[in-house]
Order: sequence, then structure tokens, then C-alpha cells
Amino acid sequence: MLHERIHRNDLLQRVISREEAASRIKNGMVVATSGFTKAGDSKEVLPAVAERALTHPLKITLMTGASLGHGTDGKLAEAGALAMRLPFQVDPVLRRKINDGEVLFIDQHLSETAEYIKAGHFPPIDYAIIEAAQILADGSIVPTTSVGNSAIFCQLARRIIIEVNTVVPLSVAGVHDIFSAGTYPNRTVIPILSPDCRIGRPSIPVDPEKIEGIVITNIRDSAAEAASGDASTAKIAGHLMDFFSWEVTKGRLKESLQPLQAGIGKVANSILRGFVDSRFHDLTMYSEVLQDSTFDLFDAGKLNFASGSSITLSESYYDKVFGDFGKYKNRLILRPQEISNSVGVIRRLGVISINTALECDIYGNVNSTHVTGTHMMNGIGGSEDFARNSYLSIFVTSSVAKGGAVSSVVPMVSHVDHTEHDVDIIVTDEGLADLRGLSPRQRARVIIENTVHRDYRERLQSYFERAVKRGGHTPHLLEEALSWHRSLQETGRM
Amino acid sequence: MLHERIHRNDLLQRVISREEAASRIKNGMVVATSGFTKAGDSKEVLPAVAERALTHPLKITLMTGASLGHGTDGKLAEAGALAMRLPFQVDPVLRRKINDGEVLFIDQHLSETAEYIKAGHFPPIDYAIIEAAQILADGSIVPTTSVGNSAIFCQLARRIIIEVNTVVPLSVAGVHDIFSAGTYPNRTVIPILSPDCRIGRPSIPVDPEKIEGIVITNIRDSAAEAASGDASTAKIAGHLMDFFSWEVTKGRLKESLQPLQAGIGKVANSILRGFVDSRFHDLTMYSEVLQDSTFDLFDAGKLNFASGSSITLSESYYDKVFGDFGKYKNRLILRPQEISNSVGVIRRLGVISINTALECDIYGNVNSTHVTGTHMMNGIGGSEDFARNSYLSIFVTSSVAKGGAVSSVVPMVSHVDHTEHDVDIIVTDEGLADLRGLSPRQRARVIIENTVHRDYRERLQSYFERAVKRGGHTPHLLEEALSWHRSLQETGRM
Repeated sequence: MLHERIHRNDLLQRVISREEAASRIKNGMVVATSGFTKAGDSKEVLPAVAERALTHPLKITLMTGASLGHGTDGKLAEAGALAMRLPFQVDPVLRRKINDGEVLFIDQHLSETAEYIKAGHFPPIDYAIIEAAQILADGSIVPTTSVGNSAIFCQLARRIIIEVNTVVPLSVAGVHDIFSAGTYPNRTVIPILSPDCRIGRPSIPVDPEKIEGIVITNIRDSAAEAASGDASTAKIAGHLMDFFSWEVTKGRLKESLQPLQAGIGKVANSILRGFVDSRFHDLTMYSEVLQDSTFDLFDAGKLNFASGSSITLSESYYDKVFGDFGKYKNRLILRPQEISNSVGVIRRLGVISINTALECDIYGNVNSTHVTGTHMMNGIGGSEDFARNSYLSIFVTSSVAKGGAVSSVVPMVSHVDHTEHDVDIIVTDEGLADLRGLSPRQRARVIIENTVHRDYRERLQSYFERAVKRGGHTPHLLEEALSWHRSLQETGRM
Repeated sequence: MLHERIHRNDLLQRVISREEAASRIKNGMVVATSGFTKAGDSKEVLPAVAERALTHPLKITLMTGASLGHGTDGKLAEAGALAMRLPFQVDPVLRRKINDGEVLFIDQHLSETAEYIKAGHFPPIDYAIIEAAQILADGSIVPTTSVGNSAIFCQLARRIIIEVNTVVPLSVAGVHDIFSAGTYPNRTVIPILSPDCRIGRPSIPVDPEKIEGIVITNIRDSAAEAASGDASTAKIAGHLMDFFSWEVTKGRLKESLQPLQAGIGKVANSILRGFVDSRFHDLTMYSEVLQDSTFDLFDAGKLNFASGSSITLSESYYDKVFGDFGKYKNRLILRPQEISNSVGVIRRLGVISINTALECDIYGNVNSTHVTGTHMMNGIGGSEDFARNSYLSIFVTSSVAKGGAVSSVVPMVSHVDHTEHDVDIIVTDEGLADLRGLSPRQRARVIIENTVHRDYRERLQSYFERAVKRGGHTPHLLEEALSWHRSLQETGRM
């Protein structure tokens, strides 16, 4: 059975226990692991590191593709095992530790981690811990449900521990496309001309000498929450469908649109599902995470091809998709995140990007990470890789949060992740603001009129009018600009 | 004589006066002109439009490559001829009109204007007014000292007026490299693998039927200010040279560094001149504006090749460079700004970008456009095309401005152009902050310690410490975060 998964006898000898593997990780080390939006993460060694840290002095720098599943980040943080974490996380315990200053966190564009490692801007990697479906005869490994940064981690880490996951069907082999543009000054073109372009090889090259141990697991990826859209997201999806229809009417888009990217989570899932009963067809995706909705669109015959870096599914979709993976495989590619999120490819393909805002301001600047400008939620992720370079950059958010206590449109965002230059369209349940070709004062009028909840509209209008009297290209009242957030901190309401 | 400049008899018949040309421009039209950082702009027709607007109702949308020379923007604004202007400007009169809300201004990444026009996000162009050194037999035109957006303007404008400038030597022919990656969904790769890659053709294709008139001029480009570095910029240059030396010592860079980009102005000029007496050699540039300092580096034998979109020189350098252009031509390429500023190429080549900040905050966010968050200076220009995608993103600024009344490092920037994700190094006359691999709280300590003027250091330190007590990944005191700017508005001092 294990021979099916590990095609080299020398490596079969290196199977070790999770505890043994964890004991190799020493205090102060830099550890890099697979895992992107809960998919393809370490199920054995990292949790064992967290357990070991309860009784051993053990504090590491941990870099990943993106978020991990199974509460692993929380267990590591709780055990005090994390000195530094990058480039993304979604764990509530880790989040608290980051905001308390106990864990240092580098919030980074997901396309850039590989660049920083290659450039030597980050310290060298002591251990890579990589989940694999298979180790081939040449030592190369077939990843599982994500690629993330695994290829660059395997290339640059001093030593490698592989977790062979027997629950992942062998049929995943062939879905991955591993490519690197090389190193300065001899970097090459990334020759992707459409989402279905296959430019690399199906497995990650690994020097077998570096493989120190192999741990066997049969634990599944953490399930994503089953997406059930609410009234607000349904309205957002409706506004967006109307907008796309209008663009087709005006001749700027075809009914096949352009390659779609959608951020992670319920809103994105719900919006993509909006295409199922739409006029649009022959869609493609050039995205980072492929979620339940991607497979709904395949099943509905709406989607021709999807490129991403991970597949993150709810429990029932996991069964459906990986139970019969051959049904989908030839319409999918999983790429390293420096390729799925490549700024040049995103611009070349003319991607339509749809990402979630935490809040936006009247000029169209977007905060997607910091509550009241200070407390980290998850991280910027890949949103700005796409927003900055897409053909159309769309941000969506409910017009209010916390039962109406918080307006998602504010005078001035308390933290900027996406500047107004990089935001073309803002959609809330209230409506859609098309900001293309508008100057800041025009943007403010369109945003206030179309996207703001009625409970906040008058106050925002008043802020804007009073600011305009004071003048400026981007009028503001500095003494009042962040007062809504200050009020939220002090009273729990804006 | 004119036959040397215009190689078609049919077009020789279309020579008209500047007034006649200006009369074609009607109220409400969208006009697109050549011109990038004062180089290769319209010297006859646009000024004539400004004159005409004094007596005729005439309000246009004006898009360019970047800034114009000869006070043309100011004359147009003064005459009330501008309804909207994009994507960049540097004129004091126009600046006032923008901040008063009389002229709408779209401040845009310079790589993106062409994208927005092609995508139909902007209205169609009625007239393109393009300066040329020559019109060839096939109707194509040889640009002069800049390429900017001229190629896309010629392609998409309904009608074209050409200004043939006889003061530009014919020897400029061959320095330009005109390339377009095409339109969706069939866009191709931009195959530049090093700054000296020539990928296109030497002239801009033009449909001769669209050429409505040709105006002859012999006016030179506006001269750039002769750069004379002051004590502060000399210190900044010194800190940067030390840093690059350190990077070579650590093995992260070679003495040839990587392709350099430098923003426009005295500081950039002064820094580039710092390389003349340095250990570095075989340098290359992949930049947007080539200034006096580029030619100093050529003359010093330090620079092998420079790629840009314009050549903007002081008066004496203009004589030197264009008096004997053959001496430099084979080490230069001028490209369309969507290519000189291409996000994918910048990342592929690993450009080291050096841009000027108006202010930065303790976490490394940079404001390069808005005084007190409200009043536009010039525009973001191409700085973020480079900063976001470069191998090393460096921002420079004097530690104080206005004779010490203003600190360039503040608790929170009043406007964000470059988020902390896109800022690796901050240099002031006080010192250099290397922010690579640091989390926000670490960044704050390094910035406060190394870059802040002593008059402001203690206050910033106090702000940071009190903010940390309140917690958060990016600690702030919202009620105080913008108080330095408010004080500047009210008292003229921070």
C-alpha cells in the first residue's frame, strides 16, 4: 500500500513517527510548511510541534502558503511556539496573540513571499514540512489539495519532512503545474496566455538527500464552512449580475466575461453561485482558492476552466469532488501561489477580481484587514495581487455590520490596504458604485448615493459637504475623519 | 527641409497653423497629447487651445503621458479650458484649480492609463496631439524625447494632429521601441528579459487618413531645473551607498546591483550621482524618466544601459546629449509607459526602485501626493508601479520640511499611496530603516530610531509606546493619529 505512495525504497526506510519528526524542530528555527486556505496543510508534524512546545522550550518562525486548518495555528500560538508567523492566518487564538504583541506577524501579498525568500530578505529555512499525495521515483513529490509555496520551500529549505497523506486520492496527480521563473538576473517569462495554459511539470522537484523523514497520515483537510448566502449577499450578487449585464450591453464585455478571481468565504461563494442562473456562459477562473461554488459552476455547465493554488471545500463537496476527481481534473490547474497570483499574468489575462472589504471610505480606499485601524483580522492575502492588476477591481461588503452598529462605509478608512487607485467598483446590499473615470469628489458622491446604509447616509453626506468647504483634491476634516472608529472603540457603535 | 521631416507628399499638404489646429478642438472633447515629464509635449496646439479658450467656450478632458512643460497646464487651467485632467501634473496653477475643485483630476498609476483606455473605462478620444521628429513614408511617426502614451493615443484617437518639431535632431530615430501586448483575450507576453531588450519597432504606426493637420514647431522641451544637491540629499545618498555596500558584503547583491529606477527630481538625481564615485559598476536602469544623472553615469563609465519613457534634461545637458546623440543612442531605449512601467517586467527584472516620499508613518506607510491628506501636490505617477513590484522598494525624504516645522515621519500618514507592504527601505538624512522581514511593531522601532529628526523623535516614541499599551497588530491612538497634520493646518507647525 505504501509502495503506491512512495516509489523509492530508500525513502520507505525514512518513515518516522510524528513525534520523532517534531523533535527535529529546534528552538529558534525557521520552519516553512505547505498549506493554503486550510488545504494541503501539515496534519501531523505541526500539531506534534505544538504538543512538544508545552514541555520543551520551542519558539519558531513559521511561514506557509496561507492559512492552516485544524486549529493548528491556534495550538501553536497557545503553546507559545510561534515567535513569528507569515504571510497569512485566520485563527482566532493566533489573532489574539498577534494583537497582544505576543506573536510577530508579517502580513504579506501572497505572491511575494516566494520573492522575499529567494531575494534573501527573509532568513534561511531550516525545515520544510510538506504534505504530499505521492513521492515519485525521482524524489519529486505530488502535492495534494494545494500548491502554495511548497515548491520554493522544497527548493530552498536545508531539510525536508514529508507528510504522505493517504486519504487524498492518487488521481490528484496531474492537476498541479509546477513552474518557476528562475532567479535574477536570468528570470524568464511566465508564459501563461489563458487560464488553461500548462507551463510546468506535475510534481515538485526535491533532492532526496534533503528528505529527513516521512510521516504517514490519513487526516482530511479541515472542511470549509458550507456556504449559505444570506439576504445581503444575495443582493450584492444581484447588483453585480446587473452590472455585468450592463457591461455586455455596452460592448465592453462578452457573455463569457474575462477570467474571474474571487476571494475566500461566503460572500465570494454566493456571488459566484449567482452565475449559475445567469445569462453568462463559457466562464473561466484565474484565482487563488477554488471553493464549492467553482464546482457548482462546473456542474451547471457555466465554467470551462479554473486555475488556482488550492481547492478548499465543505465536507459534502469534498466527497463529491475528490470522490470522482477524474470528472473535474482536466478542467483544473493548481499552481504555485507566485504564479496563481503573478502580477504580470493577472494584468495580461485581464482578470475580473472580486474581493471582500472590511470597510471602505467615501473616496474608495479599502481596509480589508484592520478593525479600527489597529487590530488584525486575517491579513491582506492575495487580494491586492489581484485588485492592483486586474481589468476590473471589485470590492464587496455588507453596508453595515454588527447588527447595524457599524457602517462599512466611513469618512476615512482607519487602515489602507487598497488605495483608491486600485478600486473600480464597490458593491454593498444597497447598490453598486462604478468609480471608473471619476475624480475623488465624484467618487464620494457616487459611493454615498449608492452603497451606504440609510442610517449612515446623511451623516456621511454632511461630512463630505463640510469637508468640501475646506477644499482639497480629497477633502477631509482631519479632526473628524477617524471619529467613527473612535466612537466604535468607546461605545461599541459608530 | 520639411521633406526631411515629412516623407509623404499628401501629408505635406496638411500643414496648418497652430490656431487652425486649435480651432478643431471643440467644447466637451476628449483630447490626448504626447508629453511625459515635460519631454515631447505639445508646444503649439495646446497653448493655442489655451489662448482660444479665453474667447471661446472650451472645456476639454485632457489626458497625457505625464506632466507637460512650458506652463501649458497652467495656461489651460487659467483659461478655464480643463474639465478633467489625467493622469499626472506638476503645475502650480493647475494644482490650485484641482484643490479648489474647479478641475477634476484623476491621479493614476502611469502604467494603467493605456489599460483603462483600451478597456473602455474612459470615454473615447476625439483628438490626439502628438509631437514627432519625423513622419515616415508609411505614415508612422518617430516620437521625440518621450514616448509616454503616444502609441495608444494614435491607435485609438478618432483624429490626429501632429506637431513636427524641427529642433529635435533626426538622430533620435531608432531610440524608441514601440510595442503593444495587444488586446484581451489575446494579449501576448512582453518579452523583455533585460533593460536593453528591444522588442518592438522604432516608430508609432499611424493611419494617415486620421491625420487632420500637421503643425511645425522649433521650440525645445522645457528645461528641467539643474540639479544641485543640498546637504540633506548628500546624506541620503551616503546612507544608500552604505546600504548597497552592505548588501554586496552579505552576498545579496553584486557590484552591478540590479536595474535601477529613480523617481523624478533633485533627490533622485543626487542619489544617482552618488554612484559616480562609488564601488559600483556595470549598472543598468529600467526606469521611467532619464535625467541629467543618467548621462553623468554614462560619462563616468558606470552605467551600461538605460531604459525609460522620456529624457528630461536641464538646459546644458540638453545641449550635451542632443548635440551629439549618437554618443548615447545605442545605450538607450525609450518605451511606451505601459512597458517602461509594466508590473510584470519590473518584477521579472528585479528592479531596485528609489522614489520620494512626502511623508511616511511609523509603520512604513507612505504618502507621496497629498499635503495634510487633502491637497494634491503632483500625483502618484509611476512610483507605485515600481514600488509594488520591485526587488527592493526604497523611499527617500528629508527628515523635516519647512525649516523644521514639519516632520516627514508622522504617527499615521494622512493619505496612503504606498502601503507598508510595498515599502522595504526608508532613508532620510538621519539614517536608513531596513524594514525587510519585520512586523509592524518592529518596523516602528527601526523607523523611529533611524529616520526621525531629533526634534520629533521623543514625541513619536511617546505616541508609539502609548499606542502599544492599547494593543493591536498596528497600534494607534485614533484620537491623536492625525493631530500632527491638524496642528499643521491650524498653526503652520506640527
